[in-house]
Amino acid sequence: MRVHGQHLRTVTLEGSVVVLIDQTLLPHQLAFCRCATPADTARAIRDMTVRGAGAIGATGALGVAQAALLAPDSGYFDQLRADAAVLRATRPTAQNLFAGVDTVLHAALAETTPDRSRAAAVAAAQAFADDDAACCAAIGAHGAPLIGERARVSTHCNAGWLAFVDWGSALSPIYAAARAGRRPFVWVDETRPRGQGASLTAWELAQEGVEHAIIADNATGHYMARGEIDLVIVGADRIAANGDVANKIGTYSSAVVAARHGIPFYVAAPTTTIDPATPTGADIPIEERSADELLWTQGVDADGVWRRVRTTPAGATGRNPAFDVTPASLIAGIITERGIVPATAAGIASVARRGPSAGPPA
Amino acid sequence: MRVHGQHLRTVTLEGSVVVLIDQTLLPHQLAFCRCATPADTARAIRDMTVRGAGAIGATGALGVAQAALLAPDSGYFDQLRADAAVLRATRPTAQNLFAGVDTVLHAALAETTPDRSRAAAVAAAQAFADDDAACCAAIGAHGAPLIGERARVSTHCNAGWLAFVDWGSALSPIYAAARAGRRPFVWVDETRPRGQGASLTAWELAQEGVEHAIIADNATGHYMARGEIDLVIVGADRIAANGDVANKIGTYSSAVVAARHGIPFYVAAPTTTIDPATPTGADIPIEERSADELLWTQGVDADGVWRRVRTTPAGATGRNPAFDVTPASLIAGIITERGIVPATAAGIASVARRGPSAGPPA
Repeated sequence: MRVHGQHLRTVTLEGSVVVLIDQTLLPHQLAFCRCATPADTARAIRDMTVRGAGAIGATGALGVAQAALLAPDSGYFDQLRADAAVLRATRPTAQNLFAGVDTVLHAALAETTPDRSRAAAVAAAQAFADDDAACCAAIGAHGAPLIGERARVSTHCNAGWLAFVDWGSALSPIYAAARAGRRPFVWVDETRPRGQGASLTAWELAQEGVEHAIIADNATGHYMARGEIDLVIVGADRIAANGDVANKIGTYSSAVVAARHGIPFYVAAPTTTIDPATPTGADIPIEERSADELLWTQGVDADGVWRRVRTTPAGATGRNPAFDVTPASLIAGIITERGIVPATAAGIASVARRGPSAGPPA
Repeated sequence: MRVHGQHLRTVTLEGSVVVLIDQTLLPHQLAFCRCATPADTARAIRDMTVRGAGAIGATGALGVAQAALLAPDSGYFDQLRADAAVLRATRPTAQNLFAGVDTVLHAALAETTPDRSRAAAVAAAQAFADDDAACCAAIGAHGAPLIGERARVSTHCNAGWLAFVDWGSALSPIYAAARAGRRPFVWVDETRPRGQGASLTAWELAQEGVEHAIIADNATGHYMARGEIDLVIVGADRIAANGDVANKIGTYSSAVVAARHGIPFYVAAPTTTIDPATPTGADIPIEERSADELLWTQGVDADGVWRRVRTTPAGATGRNPAFDVTPASLIAGIITERGIVPATAAGIASVARRGPSAGPPA
């Protein structure tokens, strides 16, 4: 996508260096994290320099290719396996991370000499990243017709290109409609507590020149009631076999209010997000994160200096569930790279990739 | 209410000094603003040292009494009228402010000598503040039976004693239930963008020893879906003749999700909040405030130093509606000092005070 007029991907391999946009500094600073070794790459995943399912998966894939390029001929395969294990252990529940690491490792281990293995690893990693970008572009193509001239779209969290290699999921149809000249307007939920809407989505949309306004999550229902939102598109962290969707906390409330006002509520996600092994949303465990994310807020002051401030009483108790579950019945459709399907068992089955759990791209 | 074990009111008159809890410093610091002159008192209202309908009204009332006490015999009535006009002009739409100022001014002007007028003003101001506290206590008594043993109550914004002279509206039934030994638990919506839940409500509840947890506004629907919220009680900024309620932005979404789960949604407010001149919620103008409230966040850093940080891209656009309207059909009942009534035209009429618009207490 465009940043300062240039086309960028969130993660690339330059020689044997993994280059990432440092998402912890956005929207205040655009900086690149250059990971010279697999250990550096693992650290960047662990400390959330890179976040978002697709971007993490591609980073894992490129990290294994990097490991292959740097491992010496002597003890090559042992070194590769060890580096891959470190990359795989950086985030406990990131399905796409495992897929990225395992796909490339599998390709690299299928060869018998270090040189052939290195070439196979690089090719597999590049294909994994390209597949992510291609899926997102296809989601944009399928979803764009939903967005009419000057449509007013609500979105939650960041399911944009920063969360993937390129294009994004929920924002991809918006970018496609904008490039087709239809001038969409986006209501950006700030997405407390981490504020990915206020920081990342707003920044992405500004870079692409898409008109938008940041609002408190509290205001979404108000604008729905006033008839100022035409449709909602959000991303997904996991899609169950029956079409229930786990996504960033607050998605559920948005879907409930949208349903009351007859506003179509779409979920956009690559089919790798579908987990056929999860029967319903009730089977999706909800991660509870540190309350500090809620009790403290980070940003820059008027002089551009990073600060962390507490907005709550000293010693206050908070609860911080990271995701919620939106039942399939509230979802107008799921926009995938294979087309828009209903949020039903049959619809999901018609596009799900093979395998008992969300695996690497075919 | 209790603060550090002592009973306090948000606003009192000590001699001719109006003493206010400085709410701009909470929850980080408990400090009192001592207003020596009516001009000081007006400034405290204007800069939101005091906020909340009931507290503002009482401050206006006590401010007029202060003006009477300080005005010299020579030109007494002219000075009193001038000071009252300054107090009245501090906030453009605060119905309770006008009621407080006008009630006391009316009482003071009914006397013919400065000394008798001063005595009448002080008595009327004290009665106005006492009436606010008594209304809130009665709301607590009427609402407390709704809160069973270990009930889990959700609330939004701050409709606690800080918003009134004492007790509060939405929190008053919770305090009454707690004092009766029923150990309620409160889910405190942080209430973006200004964060009155995270700062003021959490602070109040902690002072009174009521168990609670601060959550992102986004998480309320999640806990409703999980069956972890038994009822909701919120305050009101204005109640229309048909029972529609304007309250802090985000109230509407909470009510919609509560209705989906059959969770009773109550509004607690003194009958001065009812405006019989407003037929429905659609007739209530919604104030849009500066987007800076959303784009910037204020708090203290780890060293206790006040800081203001931006969490959004430089130059970002935001929209910041301060209130939304919850339709009467979503409201289980309105808890007033005269009892709990249905949110219907008949229910509202049965408790509304006389007059075409919300006037001063009878």
